[in-house]
Amino acid sequence: MNTFGHLFRVTTFGESHGPAIGCVIDGCPPGLEIAAEEFAHDLSRRATGRTRHTSARHEADAVEILSGVYEGRTTGTPIALLIRNTDARSKDYDRIAEQFRPGHADYTYWQKYGHRDPRGGGRSSARETTMRVAAGVIAKKWLAERHGVRVQGHLSQIGDIVPSAFDAGAIESNPFFWPHAAQVAELESYMDALRKSGDSVGARVTVVADGVPPGWGEPIYGKLDGELAAAMMSINAVKGVEIGDGFAVVAQKGSEHRDLATRAGFESNHAGGILGGISSGQQVVCSVAFKPTSSLRLPAHGLDAHGNEVDIVTTGRHDPCVGIRATPICEAMMALVLIDQALRHRAQCGDVGEVAPRIPG
Amino acid sequence: MNTFGHLFRVTTFGESHGPAIGCVIDGCPPGLEIAAEEFAHDLSRRATGRTRHTSARHEADAVEILSGVYEGRTTGTPIALLIRNTDARSKDYDRIAEQFRPGHADYTYWQKYGHRDPRGGGRSSARETTMRVAAGVIAKKWLAERHGVRVQGHLSQIGDIVPSAFDAGAIESNPFFWPHAAQVAELESYMDALRKSGDSVGARVTVVADGVPPGWGEPIYGKLDGELAAAMMSINAVKGVEIGDGFAVVAQKGSEHRDLATRAGFESNHAGGILGGISSGQQVVCSVAFKPTSSLRLPAHGLDAHGNEVDIVTTGRHDPCVGIRATPICEAMMALVLIDQALRHRAQCGDVGEVAPRIPG
Amino acid sequence: MNTFGHLFRVTTFGESHGPAIGCVIDGCPPGLEIAAEEFAHDLSRRATGRTRHTSARHEADAVEILSGVYEGRTTGTPIALLIRNTDARSKDYDRIAEQFRPGHADYTYWQKYGHRDPRGGGRSSARETTMRVAAGVIAKKWLAERHGVRVQGHLSQIGDIVPSAFDAGAIESNPFFWPHAAQVAELESYMDALRKSGDSVGARVTVVADGVPPGWGEPIYGKLDGELAAAMMSINAVKGVEIGDGFAVVAQKGSEHRDLATRAGFESNHAGGILGGISSGQQVVCSVAFKPTSSLRLPAHGLDAHGNEVDIVTTGRHDPCVGIRATPICEAMMALVLIDQALRHRAQCGDVGEVAPRIPG
Amino acid sequence: MNTFGHLFRVTTFGESHGPAIGCVIDGCPPGLEIAAEEFAHDLSRRATGRTRHTSARHEADAVEILSGVYEGRTTGTPIALLIRNTDARSKDYDRIAEQFRPGHADYTYWQKYGHRDPRGGGRSSARETTMRVAAGVIAKKWLAERHGVRVQGHLSQIGDIVPSAFDAGAIESNPFFWPHAAQVAELESYMDALRKSGDSVGARVTVVADGVPPGWGEPIYGKLDGELAAAMMSINAVKGVEIGDGFAVVAQKGSEHRDLATRAGFESNHAGGILGGISSGQQVVCSVAFKPTSSLRLPAHGLDAHGNEVDIVTTGRHDPCVGIRATPICEAMMALVLIDQALRHRAQCGDVGEVAPRIPG
Repeated sequence: MNTFGHLFRVTTFGESHGPAIGCVIDGCPPGLEIAAEEFAHDLSRRATGRTRHTSARHEADAVEILSGVYEGRTTGTPIALLIRNTDARSKDYDRIAEQFRPGHADYTYWQKYGHRDPRGGGRSSARETTMRVAAGVIAKKWLAERHGVRVQGHLSQIGDIVPSAFDAGAIESNPFFWPHAAQVAELESYMDALRKSGDSVGARVTVVADGVPPGWGEPIYGKLDGELAAAMMSINAVKGVEIGDGFAVVAQKGSEHRDLATRAGFESNHAGGILGGISSGQQVVCSVAFKPTSSLRLPAHGLDAHGNEVDIVTTGRHDPCVGIRATPICEAMMALVLIDQALRHRAQCGDVGEVAPRIPG
Repeated sequence: MNTFGHLFRVTTFGESHGPAIGCVIDGCPPGLEIAAEEFAHDLSRRATGRTRHTSARHEADAVEILSGVYEGRTTGTPIALLIRNTDARSKDYDRIAEQFRPGHADYTYWQKYGHRDPRGGGRSSARETTMRVAAGVIAKKWLAERHGVRVQGHLSQIGDIVPSAFDAGAIESNPFFWPHAAQVAELESYMDALRKSGDSVGARVTVVADGVPPGWGEPIYGKLDGELAAAMMSINAVKGVEIGDGFAVVAQKGSEHRDLATRAGFESNHAGGILGGISSGQQVVCSVAFKPTSSLRLPAHGLDAHGNEVDIVTTGRHDPCVGIRATPICEAMMALVLIDQALRHRAQCGDVGEVAPRIPG
Repeated sequence: MNTFGHLFRVTTFGESHGPAIGCVIDGCPPGLEIAAEEFAHDLSRRATGRTRHTSARHEADAVEILSGVYEGRTTGTPIALLIRNTDARSKDYDRIAEQFRPGHADYTYWQKYGHRDPRGGGRSSARETTMRVAAGVIAKKWLAERHGVRVQGHLSQIGDIVPSAFDAGAIESNPFFWPHAAQVAELESYMDALRKSGDSVGARVTVVADGVPPGWGEPIYGKLDGELAAAMMSINAVKGVEIGDGFAVVAQKGSEHRDLATRAGFESNHAGGILGGISSGQQVVCSVAFKPTSSLRLPAHGLDAHGNEVDIVTTGRHDPCVGIRATPICEAMMALVLIDQALRHRAQCGDVGEVAPRIPG
Repeated sequence: MNTFGHLFRVTTFGESHGPAIGCVIDGCPPGLEIAAEEFAHDLSRRATGRTRHTSARHEADAVEILSGVYEGRTTGTPIALLIRNTDARSKDYDRIAEQFRPGHADYTYWQKYGHRDPRGGGRSSARETTMRVAAGVIAKKWLAERHGVRVQGHLSQIGDIVPSAFDAGAIESNPFFWPHAAQVAELESYMDALRKSGDSVGARVTVVADGVPPGWGEPIYGKLDGELAAAMMSINAVKGVEIGDGFAVVAQKGSEHRDLATRAGFESNHAGGILGGISSGQQVVCSVAFKPTSSLRLPAHGLDAHGNEVDIVTTGRHDPCVGIRATPICEAMMALVLIDQALRHRAQCGDVGEVAPRIPG
C-alpha cells in the first residue's frame, strides 16, 4: 500500500539506491501554479547533509515534473515527480545484505516478501520521505492560497532537552528547527558529544496548522485526528502520535481538560483543535515521537539470513537523531491530510455553506 | 467515512438515540462458525452500567444477525449485525440541542453538516463503539482459530495511578481491567471520590497481541503501526497512540532502544513488535490515551447555536472515566487491524511461504 | 465487495430468504429531505408481482430508516435502510440446496466460498436489487433538486420486438416500461404465450439522463462511462452494456459517428453524452442487455454437489422476462453513478466554476 | 482517478506529448522474474506504425524499470515503469489548442478542468494505454506461471466484415489480429480504400481467457464481469462491452441460453464463463466495441474555446481504425482484472481450498 490519501492521493515509489524515487499525485485541483523550482526549499530543509548533525549524503535532489502541469499550472491530471538517485553508494551496504540490522526493517521485509533490496535499506529507507515532502509542497501551496492555512513544525524535545521558551520566528533560523535560539549552542554541544560516543537519540516533533476552518474531518473512520495519526505513524522511526495534550490527558481532570468557549473565542486548546474528529477552527496541534537512529557505530550482535549470530557494525552515513530532519516530513504529512480532508469536505458538504456564528480560534 | 478496513471492512451506522445501531462486515472469510450469543461476552465487558463506576444505561444490547451466516457458519457474504436502541431517553438531551457542550463534538458537527441529531450525542456518541466490539468478536475468533493470535487489553494508568505489578490473570477479575488485584480497592476509592466531586479523569489503555506471525503489515502507507494508530485514534476521546515504548523513545539512546536478537529470540521489545511497519513475531504492543469525560456535573460556560453565552450543566448518565470501558474497544480495534492485515498479507504474499529461520518472539 | 461508489457509497446486505435485506448509504450530503414513504414508488415499479407478467412475490417491502435522518432531513451520517423479509418461502428451495441450477450462480458460489445459503438464491438473488432502488431514490432526489437532472429508463427491446415509435409519456403508463402504447397488447400476448410455453426471453433496457452538466466523470479509471458499465454489469442477468450507439459503432464510419457542434448545439448524439469519459452536457444514454430468466418450468439436466447428473425443474415463482422489472434498477444504478461523479467533480474541480461558453445539449 | 485495481493497483501518468508516460504497479506479488526486455513484445503488438494501416508514430518505447525489481525479481514494493516521449511533435497540435475536435475529449476536459494540455490530446490520448499494456505483461506472466491462465484477443469485426472462420493460430500472423488468414487480403484492400477516402471505421475486439479456475470474482459490486466492463469501457473509443453472448441474449429464449452441464463438462458457453459474477471454470469471453477514429482528414465544422464556429481538419497521424491495435490493450485489461480478482479471492477464500468436484470447462 504505497498510496496515501483518498481524494488527493500520493503514490510513492523507489528504493534508496535504485535508479530513482518518485511519486504520482492524483486528484490535485486544476489551475494551481507550480514550478519545479518550488520543491527545492522544503527538500533542502529535509535534506541530509544540511548540518554536521545530520548524515552526509549530498544529492541535488532536483525534482523533474513528468506530467500533470501545463504552462505552469496543474491540469487536474496526475502529477508525476521524479528524482534520480545520483549518489547511490551500494558498496556501503553489500556486507549487510544478509544481515538483519537491529532496529531496522531488514528482518521483517525478508520474512514478509522472501526477497528484498538490501541497498541502503531499499524501500524502507527514509529516502522515501523525500517524495512526501515534494507532494507536501503542492498541498501546502493549495492550502495557503485557497484557505489561508499555514503548517509549521518544530522540534519540541531531543533526548531530555525541551525548549525553555517558544519563539516561532526562531524555528527556521537554526538547523534544529528549535523554537528558542538561546538553546542552539547547547544542542550543538549535545549532538557533538553524541556523535563522538557513536550513539543516537530520540526526538519529538510538533506540527501546528493555523487557519484550518471548522468542519474538516470525516467521522467515524476518516476523522481528522485518525488520519493524522496514520499519516505520522507511517513515517520511519515514529513510535507515538499525540493530538493536543496527548498522553498528558491521562492524568488530567475533566474540569481541567475541557476547552471552554466565549464569544471572544476558545479559552484554551487542550483538544488540539479537533473535536469528534472534526476541526474546531483552533490551531491543529500534533506531536510525534521519533526513536533514536538504529544505525550506530557501536557494534551489536544480531542474526543473519541463515540464522547465525553475527556482529553487526553500521558504517554508512547516518543521522544521530533522525527526528531533526523529520520536521518538514511531519509538516508535509499534516498538509497532505488537510488537503485531502478539505476536498472530502467540499465533496459531501459543499452545499452547507458557512454556518454562523463561528467561535474565533 | 464510516467504513474501517480494506479487506475485512466494517461499516457502522446508527445514532445513540435513533432506532438502532448496526454494522455490515464485508469480506469475512467463509466457513467461520459464529452465533448471536457469542457477542454477549465482549459487549458486556464494554457495557456501560457494568459497575457503579461506569454510567447507568441498561440495555440488553442483544445482537441480531441479519445476513451472511447460514447454518451457523459465515458464507462470505456481508454480515449485518443489528442492535435496537431500547433505552433511548431523548428527553435527557432536549435542553442541549442548541447548546455546544465543551469538549464534545456538538459544535464541530454543526459547523460541518449544518444539521445534527443532538439526542445523546447522535452519531458522535460512544454508543457507536458497540458495533466495533461486535465486529471485533468475529475478528478475534478468526485470528485465534486460524493463527493462534490472542488480543488482550488492560488499563495501564488512570489519573496518576499506574499498576505496581503486572498479572495478566488479574485483568478480567476486576471491573477496571487492572492487572494488579491488590490495587483494586484503591481504584474504587479513587473513583468514588471522583464521582462525588462531579469531575472526571483520563486513562491509558494498553493492548497486547500474542502470536502474530512475522510479516503482517503493508509498507509504506498501510503499515501495521500506521493502521493501529488510525484505528485507535478513531475511538472517541483518544488523544494519543503509542507503539512499544512510544513517547519514551524521545529520551532514549539508540544503544538502549534497539532490540537485539540471538538464536534464542529477541532480548527486548522496545519496538512493540513492529519494524518498518511489519510485525516481527514479537508481541504487538499499543497504548492509547483517553481524555477525561467531557460531560461533568460541574457547570461550565459555553455557547449556543445563536452565539449566546450560556451556562451548561450535563445531567445525563456519564462515566467519570471513559477509558475504563474502552479496554474492549481497543482490543476490538487491534483485532480488526490484524485480520485486515492478515488477509492483505495472504493476498500479496500468499506464495512466499514460510521463510526460515524465524527468530523466536 | 458489497459497496458501490466512491463518495456516495452504498453497501448492501442480505439474502433473499434471510431475516432482512438492507443497505447503508455513506457520504450522502446533509440537509436533503427524505421520508420513508418516498421509497414506495420506485420499489413498487421494481416489485415482482406488479403484473401477471412478473413473478408473484407479494411483499410490502416497507423501508425502515434506521439512521442518518433527523427531523426529516439527512444529517450527513450513514443512512441505514432496512426491509424485513416477510414472504420468505424457504420450502420452495429445499430441494435444490444441493443442485446447481443451470444459468444460476449456485455452482460458482459453491466453488468460491465452499458454503452457501441456497434459500431463494441467497445473496445472488435479484432481491438484492431492491436496496439499489431504495438508494437510487435518494440519489435521484438530490440530483433533481441540486442539478435538475432527471433519470428515466424504458424497455427498448424484448425478444425480437422493438418499439415502433418513442413516446416518453407512455413509459409509465404500461407495465412493460414500453415507450409506445400501441404495442402493449402485442407484448401482453407475447408474454402470455411465453409463460404458457414455460420458457423465458431476454430484454434490452435503455436509460437516459437529462440535465447532466458538462464535466462529470473522472478519467482515466473513473470515467463516467466506465463506472456506468460497472454499475450496469453488476446487476443480475446483465450480459452487455452500451453507451450511445454502442455496438452499432463497429459498422459506422467516422464521418457518420462524430457528433458535430454548432452554436445552436450538438447535431447528433452518437456518443451518448460522454467524451473522454466526461459528460458533454448532452443526454447520457446507456443500454443494457438482460439474459432470459434461467429458472424455467422446462426441465433440464444438470449436476448436484456430489457430481451426480440430475434432472432439474424450477418450481418457484419466476419472471419469464427479468428485464422488464429491471428498468427501475437500471435507473437507480445510473443515478448512483451520477451522484458519485457529481460529488467527485466538486471535490476536485469545485474551484473551476463555469467555463463559458457551453454548447447547448 | 488514474488507478486501476484493488489489490494489484496500476496508476498511470503522463500526457501524449509531455516529457514521459509511466505507471506505478502496487501490490504485485514478490518473487516474479521480470526484465525490461519482456515488455517489448506486447508494446510492439500495440504500437502505432506497426503496419501501414495504423498511424505512423515511431518510438522505441523502451521501458525503464525504476523500482520494485531487484536482481531480476519483483520485491513486493511498487514497480515504477517509465517511457520517455521521444517523438513528441507538438507543432502538429498547436493549431487545435483552442478548437474542440468533434468526437474528442477536448471540449469535455476543458469544461471539467478549465485548463488542459492540448498537445496530442494530452492525457486523453491513446498513448496512455501503452502503460496498460506494460502492466498487463506483468499480470499475464503471473497468471500464466501461477495459474496456467492464458489471455488472447482477436479482432472479431471491422466495419461489416466478420471472420468467416476461426483459427486461433492465425491471429498473431497478420497485422489485424484476424483469426482467419484467408481474409487478410480483403482487409488490406478495405483499409487502403478507407485511408484513401479519408474516413475511418469501427471494430469489435474479443478477448478470451483460458484456464481461469472457478471462483474468481467478488459479488455484488466487484463481480468479475462488472470489473471487466469497467476495465474495457475505460479504454479510449470503447462504446460497448459484452460478456459471452452479450446483446444477442436479448432475443434468446431461456431454454436456448442456459448452459447445461454434465459430468463431461458444460455443453455450451453462452454465459461467457461467468455466473453470478464469479468465474465458472469455462473460457471467460468478453467483446468490446470500438468507435471509428474521430480524427479524419475529412473536414468538419465545430466550435472553438470562444464559442466561434470553425472548420476543423485533423492533420496529425491517426489510425483509420483504432480498434485494430486495441487488441493487446483489451488483453492487458482482462489480465489486470484477472490478477486482481485472483489476489482478492485468495485474500478472502484462501482457506476454502478446492471444493470437489469441478465441472470440466
